[in-house]
Amino acid sequence: MGNTTMVFQLNLLLLFLLVIQFSESSKPKLFNMFSSTNDKQHGNNTIWAVLVAGSKGYYNYRHQADVCHAYQILRHGGLKDENIIVFMYDDIASDPKNPRPGVIINNPNGSNVYADVPKDYTGESVTAANFYAVLLGNKTAVKGGSGKVVASKRNDKIFVFYSDHGGPGVLGMPSMPLVFANDFIKVLKTKHASRTYDEMVIYIESCESGSIFEGLLPKDLNIYVTTASNATENSWATYCPDMKPPAPPEYDTCLGDLYSISWMENSESEDLRHETLKQQYLKVKKRTYNNDDYGSHVMQYGTLGISKETVSVYQGSTRNLSSNPGQSYGSMGVVHQRDVDLYSMWQTYKKSREESQKEDLLKQIKEITAYRAHLDSSVDMIQRYLLASTHISVRGEGMALVDDWECLKSMVRTFETHCGSLTEYGMKHTRTFANICNNGFTKKAMEEASKETCSGHNMGKWNPAIVGYSA
Amino acid sequence: MGNTTMVFQLNLLLLFLLVIQFSESSKPKLFNMFSSTNDKQHGNNTIWAVLVAGSKGYYNYRHQADVCHAYQILRHGGLKDENIIVFMYDDIASDPKNPRPGVIINNPNGSNVYADVPKDYTGESVTAANFYAVLLGNKTAVKGGSGKVVASKRNDKIFVFYSDHGGPGVLGMPSMPLVFANDFIKVLKTKHASRTYDEMVIYIESCESGSIFEGLLPKDLNIYVTTASNATENSWATYCPDMKPPAPPEYDTCLGDLYSISWMENSESEDLRHETLKQQYLKVKKRTYNNDDYGSHVMQYGTLGISKETVSVYQGSTRNLSSNPGQSYGSMGVVHQRDVDLYSMWQTYKKSREESQKEDLLKQIKEITAYRAHLDSSVDMIQRYLLASTHISVRGEGMALVDDWECLKSMVRTFETHCGSLTEYGMKHTRTFANICNNGFTKKAMEEASKETCSGHNMGKWNPAIVGYSA
Repeated sequence: MGNTTMVFQLNLLLLFLLVIQFSESSKPKLFNMFSSTNDKQHGNNTIWAVLVAGSKGYYNYRHQADVCHAYQILRHGGLKDENIIVFMYDDIASDPKNPRPGVIINNPNGSNVYADVPKDYTGESVTAANFYAVLLGNKTAVKGGSGKVVASKRNDKIFVFYSDHGGPGVLGMPSMPLVFANDFIKVLKTKHASRTYDEMVIYIESCESGSIFEGLLPKDLNIYVTTASNATENSWATYCPDMKPPAPPEYDTCLGDLYSISWMENSESEDLRHETLKQQYLKVKKRTYNNDDYGSHVMQYGTLGISKETVSVYQGSTRNLSSNPGQSYGSMGVVHQRDVDLYSMWQTYKKSREESQKEDLLKQIKEITAYRAHLDSSVDMIQRYLLASTHISVRGEGMALVDDWECLKSMVRTFETHCGSLTEYGMKHTRTFANICNNGFTKKAMEEASKETCSGHNMGKWNPAIVGYSA
Repeated sequence: MGNTTMVFQLNLLLLFLLVIQFSESSKPKLFNMFSSTNDKQHGNNTIWAVLVAGSKGYYNYRHQADVCHAYQILRHGGLKDENIIVFMYDDIASDPKNPRPGVIINNPNGSNVYADVPKDYTGESVTAANFYAVLLGNKTAVKGGSGKVVASKRNDKIFVFYSDHGGPGVLGMPSMPLVFANDFIKVLKTKHASRTYDEMVIYIESCESGSIFEGLLPKDLNIYVTTASNATENSWATYCPDMKPPAPPEYDTCLGDLYSISWMENSESEDLRHETLKQQYLKVKKRTYNNDDYGSHVMQYGTLGISKETVSVYQGSTRNLSSNPGQSYGSMGVVHQRDVDLYSMWQTYKKSREESQKEDLLKQIKEITAYRAHLDSSVDMIQRYLLASTHISVRGEGMALVDDWECLKSMVRTFETHCGSLTEYGMKHTRTFANICNNGFTKKAMEEASKETCSGHNMGKWNPAIVGYSA
């Protein structure tokens, strides 16, 4: 009798423990089991997410806003904090220029997307190396940060979202070096070889983001990618001051990026258990094209078959999280990603009533403008010196930017040594360096051209010895 | 009997004089009377031609080559020297860099097009004011030069060909100021009001040449125009060193411009008594588009009905003057008009074996490149200062660049006063100044923006007080 009671009580206890464990970890699993008719996966799988804002500084507000917003969508979709790894410099919410301290918004009427965002990798730990280590689940390779990594298993799904500046073959990082496409692709191949995921979806917002995958991403890695732009065009910031629709008047910076807010506002307004990735891609493509008026061409790469699955398989699902006005697909006011800083500084200048602040801003603006002109003219000069051509030749569709990536990196370093840091703005010039490699020039030739071009130029605060080398 | 003999002899003399007069002046007239089935004109009309090369300097070789070539076509077509007025600086044939002294060619295999070209307006007499006076037949307003003007009569035809650099609303001149579209159009209207021509055809080669007529040229002036490019794009130089097809190896400059050589090589290979202006327009348009590879969009403006007439009505006709290889319409190697100087200097640099020459060239190139960067960044800064925008807004099709042309000229002068001469390269920025006018800014606001932007910059040899103001 005593024994029976004990056995019964033990059984009750086991059942209780089971229920607890189930309720603790089942949300995404449950979701994945029942949510989608297209879902190939049944049973034990987890959705992992890696969210990366690759910039810092108040004038790049929007990248961290994009990423925080993505976090909220995934969290509401049922993903758990332990499976969402966030990279963000985390200097926005507390920036003295932020008109709403402690708050980040990604839409003029949006709520605070900064709340509860896990601070896995912030400040100096937002690096390319940590991004790779996190993706590979390589806890020992991580430096700084929470140490959280994608400890995914064979049947798991992975969702990656990256928002930042970019250039041909490169994605930005707040601390140097940049993410180079070949390294990123290598990480994806390694991840695939380790059989630690079933399928992966990657969304990338940046200028020339198509160039990260064009001719580089194999179709058999079970990875489906969409990018904000093709390999040769910029992407666009939106919800900017004095535009349509405008950021609230107290903001001197853009709140979001066009491709990013397009997929997120779509995810918030659709039933993701029924919308497929392909449907989302098509809607985002249409909106990001911006009615033919200042937009970019959203691209897809990799294992396109994955796009038949529902969005919920990667983002979870909460129906109608909000109904955003942007869904009308009206033409959006936008600013070129590489121009937002100057645009924003001028906004501040115009609003300012303090003469000393105005003077200071004007000085900064002149300095930035002059440095950009220096970068452009130096690259132009080097290009003519070596290639004799003024055409920036673009390799055909399906071809990678460059074959020898170590050459590209070496050219970037050589340029920076003699002419100064490329900066977020100058990332656009990597195609010229790639062409120099594709034409078989040696590092020595590049050295000579850079020296001839930039000798006597004072690079000031843009010395790569101070700000770091891009490669 | 004596009387009869005398009358007979007098009659013979009269007949003789008549024959002489007929053979002296009848070529174009005869031609116009019998050459074309579409020709509305019968009887006494003369074809007049005004040919203008608006640049100087060896790196602009091609504009004078274009114009000399056009002269040869018209001369062979039967036009008389007294009816062809040529504007050219005339510094090319004798330039020490010219590998064939006294010779100008407009095609790698072409013959000397410089031979016999009338030197009506050369050197400092190649001016906008003289161009207008010549067109209007206003002999007293002409300064310098041969004094030859278009003394056309009611039934006469006029053919105008202009080859040079340009920019939105402007055409270059070797001596300042530039030709502004409103002034040119005003001249055309005055000419029309004076009833001193029947119909006029104008061909223009320059960057943004469409902007000279877009929204400006009335359709009822009996003037038919085609331009090398639309209102917002550059035009292209061709037969350049190291290109396909290349200039002969001893040349460090481009021999022609794509639109110009397209119409001329077409005129030389077709029977112009049967080819209509429309047919020529379509063929030139196709070739100048350059198989979608670095080309521009040839446009037509004005009284389009004129294009039903044969080319011979304006250019005369000699069948199959030459059969040029360019007629295959293969893709042509081209260089952006505004880039030919730097492209050419680099060609010289690469070929040079003399260290001192190389150093000197490099110094010059760096200086030009830096000045261009200064122009670009200054205009960019001013644009942001006043317009807060980074988009160079383009007015809709059919709209003129600007409504207040005096405002545009004033903005150009203000910019040049503080920042330096626009130069051939900087002409591309006139659209920004036009936008500043279109947005209602005053000269004072522009003054302030230019001062803020360019204070402390040494304009050196590009001081407009030395090189002249563009407006």
